Amino acid sequence: MVQAPGEQYALLTDLYELTMAASYFEEGMHEEATFSLFIRKYPPNRGFFVAAGLAEALHYLATLRFSDDDVAYLESTRLFQKAFLDYLKTVRFTGEVWALPEGSLFFKDEPILEVSGPIIEAQLAETFIINAVNLQTLIATKAARATVAAQGRRLVDFSLRRTQGIDAGLKVARASYLAGFVGTSNVLAGKLYDLPIFGTMAHSYITSFPSEIEAFRAFARAFPQNTVLLIDTYDTIAGAKKAIQVGQEMAARGHKLRGVRLDSGDMAALSIDVRRLLDEAGLEYVTIFASGGFDEAKIAHTLAAGGKIDAFGVGTKMGVSADAPYFDCAYKLVRYGGRPVMKLSTGKVTYVDKKQIFRQYDDQGLMAGDSIGRREETIPDARPLLQPVMAQGRLLSPLPSLKASREYFLQEFAKLPMEYKSLENPPAYPVQITPALRQWQAEVEARVRRQELA
Amino acid sequence: MVQAPGEQYALLTDLYELTMAASYFEEGMHEEATFSLFIRKYPPNRGFFVAAGLAEALHYLATLRFSDDDVAYLESTRLFQKAFLDYLKTVRFTGEVWALPEGSLFFKDEPILEVSGPIIEAQLAETFIINAVNLQTLIATKAARATVAAQGRRLVDFSLRRTQGIDAGLKVARASYLAGFVGTSNVLAGKLYDLPIFGTMAHSYITSFPSEIEAFRAFARAFPQNTVLLIDTYDTIAGAKKAIQVGQEMAARGHKLRGVRLDSGDMAALSIDVRRLLDEAGLEYVTIFASGGFDEAKIAHTLAAGGKIDAFGVGTKMGVSADAPYFDCAYKLVRYGGRPVMKLSTGKVTYVDKKQIFRQYDDQGLMAGDSIGRREETIPDARPLLQPVMAQGRLLSPLPSLKASREYFLQEFAKLPMEYKSLENPPAYPVQITPALRQWQAEVEARVRRQELA
Repeated sequence: MVQAPGEQYALLTDLYELTMAASYFEEGMHEEATFSLFIRKYPPNRGFFVAAGLAEALHYLATLRFSDDDVAYLESTRLFQKAFLDYLKTVRFTGEVWALPEGSLFFKDEPILEVSGPIIEAQLAETFIINAVNLQTLIATKAARATVAAQGRRLVDFSLRRTQGIDAGLKVARASYLAGFVGTSNVLAGKLYDLPIFGTMAHSYITSFPSEIEAFRAFARAFPQNTVLLIDTYDTIAGAKKAIQVGQEMAARGHKLRGVRLDSGDMAALSIDVRRLLDEAGLEYVTIFASGGFDEAKIAHTLAAGGKIDAFGVGTKMGVSADAPYFDCAYKLVRYGGRPVMKLSTGKVTYVDKKQIFRQYDDQGLMAGDSIGRREETIPDARPLLQPVMAQGRLLSPLPSLKASREYFLQEFAKLPMEYKSLENPPAYPVQITPALRQWQAEVEARVRRQELA
Repeated sequence: MVQAPGEQYALLTDLYELTMAASYFEEGMHEEATFSLFIRKYPPNRGFFVAAGLAEALHYLATLRFSDDDVAYLESTRLFQKAFLDYLKTVRFTGEVWALPEGSLFFKDEPILEVSGPIIEAQLAETFIINAVNLQTLIATKAARATVAAQGRRLVDFSLRRTQGIDAGLKVARASYLAGFVGTSNVLAGKLYDLPIFGTMAHSYITSFPSEIEAFRAFARAFPQNTVLLIDTYDTIAGAKKAIQVGQEMAARGHKLRGVRLDSGDMAALSIDVRRLLDEAGLEYVTIFASGGFDEAKIAHTLAAGGKIDAFGVGTKMGVSADAPYFDCAYKLVRYGGRPVMKLSTGKVTYVDKKQIFRQYDDQGLMAGDSIGRREETIPDARPLLQPVMAQGRLLSPLPSLKASREYFLQEFAKLPMEYKSLENPPAYPVQITPALRQWQAEVEARVRRQELA
């Protein structure tokens, strides 16, 4: 489940991918198709995207195959001819992929990846690839915003209970770590992705004991090196005083209380009071951890109000990207059989043909603007971002580790000027279309209009 | 993956479930705990919830166990003592569950299920149970709203590409079917849950051919019994005229074009024009299918504007419950060792102890109001809703099939007065607390306040 294997998920697709494939097969259409994956627009308050999910998409392509059982199911639907079903058993992805490395920053209309291969192979992968890249990119982008708000304070993923399912729970832990979180409460994600895991106690733990202080003492006995006490079960200030008492008892035994956790109420005001109480009791080393409804907006608000918080547990609102729970992410055919193609559907522009993104930097090394151009263009002093990662259905080289991708993201994010990281209404990062692509686009559109709408 | 087995997902939990368990173990705390799962409040415009996800939660409980590999991972974290790790290998869920059948209607604060068992067993299940019930209940509720808007027209789940991961893709197909959808585009969900599957072609299919009409003809050749033509690739009205031409060619061969699909533009106006063109051409039998950004609001708006649409593909906005992508769903300890318990954290009320929901009906058999009471109460003329479904860790009887649960939902939903189904600002369905529970709650609160805050 680290990466869903294509062997198991060939049927995790929309039926139309298979009906289209059946028709391509009957028509003998096996020429090269290129599909481009991109996001059409920014949700409110977003001005950048963090690329994630590529590893899963590539693993799927590398392992895609229909089992006998899959084909037997398809046969049972009576939709397909025997010859096509026999052919499906032989399908492998044999094409190429150009992609942004995980952790890259990108912007609307820029291709995250482009898949080229025989049309049936590249078409069948549509649903899975959108699903994989959309979710992790959505979460990495949301998590990156939380790191901006936290200004260097540590963030931990607490979202598992309300992520949209199991797979999301795992991928949220992965994507938020990629975007700068320090770890997760999700134990299985910790195991599968080698992530630091965090967690101590819930309110149920406190209420299961005859009194709050007995609960605190029991936990300190069990975890003398790793005790963070949840202090808001009955009253945060009363709880803080009991935590201080237990912290002092631990100190007398040569142990250190690691922290206290706030989970409700006015976090800024409470954290200021709790910090003062801790410091006055000689427990300056005890950290304050806060959780409960945090996202980038609540983190920013709490810190702006003077909150004395060392680390945040960031849960549901990050884990479902609550203010923008999906991106308008599309996988569109841009070329078939050597011919650039486009649709004209109302209000939706797709740039034709194989493309490249070119990024320029200013004197300080900060990002200055991107251009979307044709694949074969070169632009002086601009860095081409899409890299060939798969050819003939095989990875060209091993993908970076998650930790390496996290480092790459942190480096890249430092190059994005602060104005574009604004949490509210960021300005649009400049993205141009090159003259060559613009002209090619216009020629294709004129041809299509002439032919279909004359 | 139909139901994630507890054998594989014991570690799919928050770390604190395990640290709490370790402390309970060290303290010798093995008495019976009862946890109650409920939703604290309605998201905007919601006035009812549709219970779903129970089958998965119960399957998890029945199969929960830690593998040697799981325990080896936990050992590697150096957080736990050997005795506790050895104990973990023996843990099974041996308790009982009372629950609402899938497809039930319920309201805020009402328990969806209550789990009772030795505290470690019942505590460990928290994260998984919330995750399973929250997601499917979220989606079933959203999908039910879409069926209200559609007024009997057929709805198909089209959300897979942008659901939050693989597991969500499958469960959205399941939960939307439970709530009255007729099927899904998701082929794997069709296979795993025995759901009707739907789908024909994407824009890429059209653009891969030299012309739109050649694409239409090729599809009609491949699927003479099952052709629905996507007509908006270049221009919906021009596309409709080509579809009519192909529909007439099919008729001349003794076949029937099944439908056309609109996917962009002003759906109401376009569907009226397309219906007229089809009817004028003698293709009254050709249905109009619409997709593209539909949720309950857009369905209602399109039909109110006179849209001539026979069926809708409902995608992303339903599949992530976009306007309310999570519920404030909690699993709270309400009783331990024979003692009712509660927390007092700011702004959050949890009703103590084992409970029951009692539902009353009016003379027409419509739902008239609910009461939340103590488990052992009886209320004349009221139907108790929570049923014992598991005891000593085993299902008391096989769960209903998905189709049976769908039928149950449809029956129950017909009993909810229309005013509560309003898509905007529905009135609050009446839910009372029984005098017995209210008094018990007050006594427990007084005791806790006396003890912790004196």
